Amino acid sequence: MKIALGIQYDGTPFSGWQVQPDRPTVQQTLEEALGAFAGIGQPVPTICAGRTDTGVHATGQVVHIEAPVERPMNAWVRGTNSFLPPAVAVRWAKPVPEDFSARFSAIGRTYEYWIVNEPVRVPLLAGRAGWCFRPCDVEKMEEAAAVLLGEHDFTSFRAAECQAKSPVRRIDSIRFTVRGNMIGIRFEANAFLQHMVRNLVGSLVYVGIGKKPVGWLADVLEARNRALAAPTYAPDGLYLVGVNYGEAGDAAGLPRYSPTFMGPF
Amino acid sequence: MKIALGIQYDGTPFSGWQVQPDRPTVQQTLEEALGAFAGIGQPVPTICAGRTDTGVHATGQVVHIEAPVERPMNAWVRGTNSFLPPAVAVRWAKPVPEDFSARFSAIGRTYEYWIVNEPVRVPLLAGRAGWCFRPCDVEKMEEAAAVLLGEHDFTSFRAAECQAKSPVRRIDSIRFTVRGNMIGIRFEANAFLQHMVRNLVGSLVYVGIGKKPVGWLADVLEARNRALAAPTYAPDGLYLVGVNYGEAGDAAGLPRYSPTFMGPF
Repeated sequence: MKIALGIQYDGTPFSGWQVQPDRPTVQQTLEEALGAFAGIGQPVPTICAGRTDTGVHATGQVVHIEAPVERPMNAWVRGTNSFLPPAVAVRWAKPVPEDFSARFSAIGRTYEYWIVNEPVRVPLLAGRAGWCFRPCDVEKMEEAAAVLLGEHDFTSFRAAECQAKSPVRRIDSIRFTVRGNMIGIRFEANAFLQHMVRNLVGSLVYVGIGKKPVGWLADVLEARNRALAAPTYAPDGLYLVGVNYGEAGDAAGLPRYSPTFMGPF
Repeated sequence: MKIALGIQYDGTPFSGWQVQPDRPTVQQTLEEALGAFAGIGQPVPTICAGRTDTGVHATGQVVHIEAPVERPMNAWVRGTNSFLPPAVAVRWAKPVPEDFSARFSAIGRTYEYWIVNEPVRVPLLAGRAGWCFRPCDVEKMEEAAAVLLGEHDFTSFRAAECQAKSPVRRIDSIRFTVRGNMIGIRFEANAFLQHMVRNLVGSLVYVGIGKKPVGWLADVLEARNRALAAPTYAPDGLYLVGVNYGEAGDAAGLPRYSPTFMGPF
């Protein structure tokens, strides 16, 4: 039986999602907890929707597993959680058809980036939000972001070590919200390149603080040259908040969006 | 010259405020950073408004110091912060009269307790909110809390090791707010006994989940017997959010309230 699981994690204590030798990763932690709950004496392999980097969080990560034992869905949630550390939890479990893949069935991913925009740093948001100490003009950032919508070659916003075959991605929406001294930016796309959101945020902040004009982003995008964009923004403020599986996901009852505690959009 | 400093900290990595041998405390961390910034080769002694316990946070802690060197106020903020770890920051600095004491001039303290009320635990709020997995009836909690207002002997809600001379305190207000799946409870009092807020929250939750009737809190208060109240709630959700210095504080420009990132009241 195939099961989809919704996973939330604080990325701070982990070296990202994907299993690595000698480093704590979310994947390894989860697979071992699933194996412990199933009582099979070995980890349960998982396939995930988005392999997040070191320090990046998720409220809406989705994985699938081939269940090695039969258990009620709520037991997969509570039982696995009893073997997980405080920084990770299974939030829901749903049976899915055999042809469902958390990775390949996904037609869209949604990330949010949260910035705390204050002159003095905020300890209670350390590791949970990016920090910009100069005042950010959100309207300018919105104006600049419009050029990113649609299908583009995002080479300028791609990590050097990115292993994707194509640098072309389709961004469906970029929305901004302001809550007190927090700026939230929500990106929906079919998929993202490595560091793409953090690189986009870095360049949007350059526009927001007036270091670059609104039109600059179009030039950077067109140049297909990583060296022209701003530095990568910190992982602290990045959250994988949802995965879209279209009608197949809706039929299986998978949520498309899980808000962060920073506030919904 | 006497200076008041506003301090924010994530209490998770510290064994509370007060200096202890061989354990990291907020006080020691701050005093060493102040000394490093002042360049005097030793810590700068501080007096604080509220000595928070292990794991308890603050957005609005206030300390005073006798400035050992003359520096502009914003240098006390930025300079000291450059010597502080991510979990602590000076948020503001203001000159105060020589007769001002962060501790003895305070006529009121405000704490907030934040509960995440969900059946499944929330990793991104681990260490930042208390957790109640049974549904809480906030109206019942509000009704029960009314009996706590005013001056009372709070022996039933006092830690065994509390060193205060008198168990009598005056609670000026208890306000509730609900934001999504979060319940915030804000307590204003002249001062608090050790563990008093966490003990009150534990008993209010007993009422909220229906384990005890609304009228039970009055009986517990009257009994002056710690054994009758509910267990102490976790430090995770407790924040010192403000200190009230009355007109003296207003004249010096000290803020009375610094909201948490959970949302203002």
